[in-house]
Amino acid sequence: MSVFFSGRYAQLEPYTPGEQPQDRRYIKLNTNESPFPPSPGVLEAVREEAGRLQLYSDPESRTVTCALAEHYGLQPDQVLVGNDSDELLNFAFMAYCDDGCPALFPDVTYGFYPVFAGLNRIPMIEVPLREDFSVCIDDYLDLKGTVFLANPNAPTGLALSSAEIERMLKARPSYMHVIDEAYVDFGAESVLPLIHRYENLLVIQTFSKSRSLAGARLGFAAGQAPLIRDLNTLKYSTNPYNVNRMTSAAGTAALKEDEYYRRNARIIMENRAWTAGELKRLGFTVTDSRANFLFAACPELPGEKYYLAMKERGILVRYLKGPRLKPFVRITVGTKQQMETLIRETETLLKTEAATHA
Amino acid sequence: MSVFFSGRYAQLEPYTPGEQPQDRRYIKLNTNESPFPPSPGVLEAVREEAGRLQLYSDPESRTVTCALAEHYGLQPDQVLVGNDSDELLNFAFMAYCDDGCPALFPDVTYGFYPVFAGLNRIPMIEVPLREDFSVCIDDYLDLKGTVFLANPNAPTGLALSSAEIERMLKARPSYMHVIDEAYVDFGAESVLPLIHRYENLLVIQTFSKSRSLAGARLGFAAGQAPLIRDLNTLKYSTNPYNVNRMTSAAGTAALKEDEYYRRNARIIMENRAWTAGELKRLGFTVTDSRANFLFAACPELPGEKYYLAMKERGILVRYLKGPRLKPFVRITVGTKQQMETLIRETETLLKTEAATHA
Repeated sequence: MSVFFSGRYAQLEPYTPGEQPQDRRYIKLNTNESPFPPSPGVLEAVREEAGRLQLYSDPESRTVTCALAEHYGLQPDQVLVGNDSDELLNFAFMAYCDDGCPALFPDVTYGFYPVFAGLNRIPMIEVPLREDFSVCIDDYLDLKGTVFLANPNAPTGLALSSAEIERMLKARPSYMHVIDEAYVDFGAESVLPLIHRYENLLVIQTFSKSRSLAGARLGFAAGQAPLIRDLNTLKYSTNPYNVNRMTSAAGTAALKEDEYYRRNARIIMENRAWTAGELKRLGFTVTDSRANFLFAACPELPGEKYYLAMKERGILVRYLKGPRLKPFVRITVGTKQQMETLIRETETLLKTEAATHA
Repeated sequence: MSVFFSGRYAQLEPYTPGEQPQDRRYIKLNTNESPFPPSPGVLEAVREEAGRLQLYSDPESRTVTCALAEHYGLQPDQVLVGNDSDELLNFAFMAYCDDGCPALFPDVTYGFYPVFAGLNRIPMIEVPLREDFSVCIDDYLDLKGTVFLANPNAPTGLALSSAEIERMLKARPSYMHVIDEAYVDFGAESVLPLIHRYENLLVIQTFSKSRSLAGARLGFAAGQAPLIRDLNTLKYSTNPYNVNRMTSAAGTAALKEDEYYRRNARIIMENRAWTAGELKRLGFTVTDSRANFLFAACPELPGEKYYLAMKERGILVRYLKGPRLKPFVRITVGTKQQMETLIRETETLLKTEAATHA
């Protein structure tokens, strides 16, 4: 920290992104990327757009915004695109929380929520998950503040039904609810259709997971028009050209090739089921994940040790901090071949461990 | 605004970007873009990167950061890239201003500075320019706070010498100075070499102007390592993957083809000199701009009327608000052909005006 740094941020604990090693090639199962490349139309659209980079992008990002609105049965003024969902989540913390309106979220969830609260000097209440890691909606009903829920939740993969979330929207009409659906395309229920009926609902999604565009950075928020106007006020006060030309073009093209991405999501769900079964066979505890990752505890090793052992074997997974999470790792679901390697290496590891302790 | 919007931002006046018309084709001289496309290597690099978009970018953006460091004779830990300079300027307002440390900047400058101050609820002091629109360094020497200077300044195009800025750095050792060099490559003096000697200097540049990458969104901040660490704390608390893969690749490639961009900058400076001469011949007041735009007042029409008349003729320029700026327009310097059309249309306009009032 320099001597000039404002005391406002001196205590801030930044987010730590997953390892992105630049040296050695790993089977990367640590940052929930898609194992599939973007569709052919995306490559073409980006290539074409590269020749126009001397011109600013449209600050309203009309093309991709209209394509999203059409895809999801919304009006363009109900959609805002961002430099991926992190930017939009930050706007939502800014817009809908302050000293009198704390941020409410589970004690185990996307690690960025407490950082956004800290950054914006917003009070926060971390609501404990149930013993089985599920979110208990009833715990939120009597609390004052804006709810942030990742659904499916990270890193557990557990999902709430749309009906459960609707119950909360109805019970808390004077408070906002931000539902972060980063992983929704892998078998959970989206609450996007509810935005027509609830003015207190903002849904945030990303192109990083099911649409193979993590490296392009594109996310969107959807909600009733007044909410989108709030977020636009913040966008135009932060970075009016927040989404660059290439990313807009990539997103628009991806929406045209939806069947490709749906098929990939189906394959990942199949691989998830197979991998979960294999891990259970090996004695792991595995939650019922609806995301493109598994949340699993090795029978022999705490999360960090399993991570280290796998890294040695050329496979990256993510271990987690915090007392309840220590036994677990988060494993991105990749191709069948990658999952087979993971299971094979895990089986060998467990045998070695057993021999050592015999 | 929704009923849920925080009172913190209720009074915020967002920035208004220049028109980016999507309908008709204009000669676009209103947002200071380069009239030249990116260099061939940029197109190739982007095309290659498009196939890897399923993977996150490197959160440290090592490749482009190291390329920048090498290009400017810096260490990698003295450089931070951002989603263009707007993101980095916002970080600088956050990092180096607060209730006890106001933001100081000229009353006529980049219109985003007051917005960043408002967004971050930072007190600001707008220091009047001299009558001739130049910045008077002496006016800042006794003020408490962080100085933000666009150099060359917008929309005047006037530049301070490196020696003048150094005098301020020496005279105000306990305060930060952020020098926004968006337009520096068009004939002004950069203070980048001074960062080795002054811990209270942060320099911010962009690839949007001289490097033909407005649509890619790439900017960088340079300063001593502790300053870059401050900004990284904010980046990792906001958007760790702030620069996407395609933009990083474009920036890295552009640095390898520097001669192409230097040549373009020379052409723009020649066209600027020619256009300034012609405008003066037609009776305009024109400042001595060191940027890729001219700040000029039409002898017959206030800025907004000149803008409207030119728009009808298929040429977009930017008019300005505020009592001192009303007579002026800001005209981006484009190709020789574009400038010839501008002068021809202006000449016709002035003749029509003279006939009407005769």
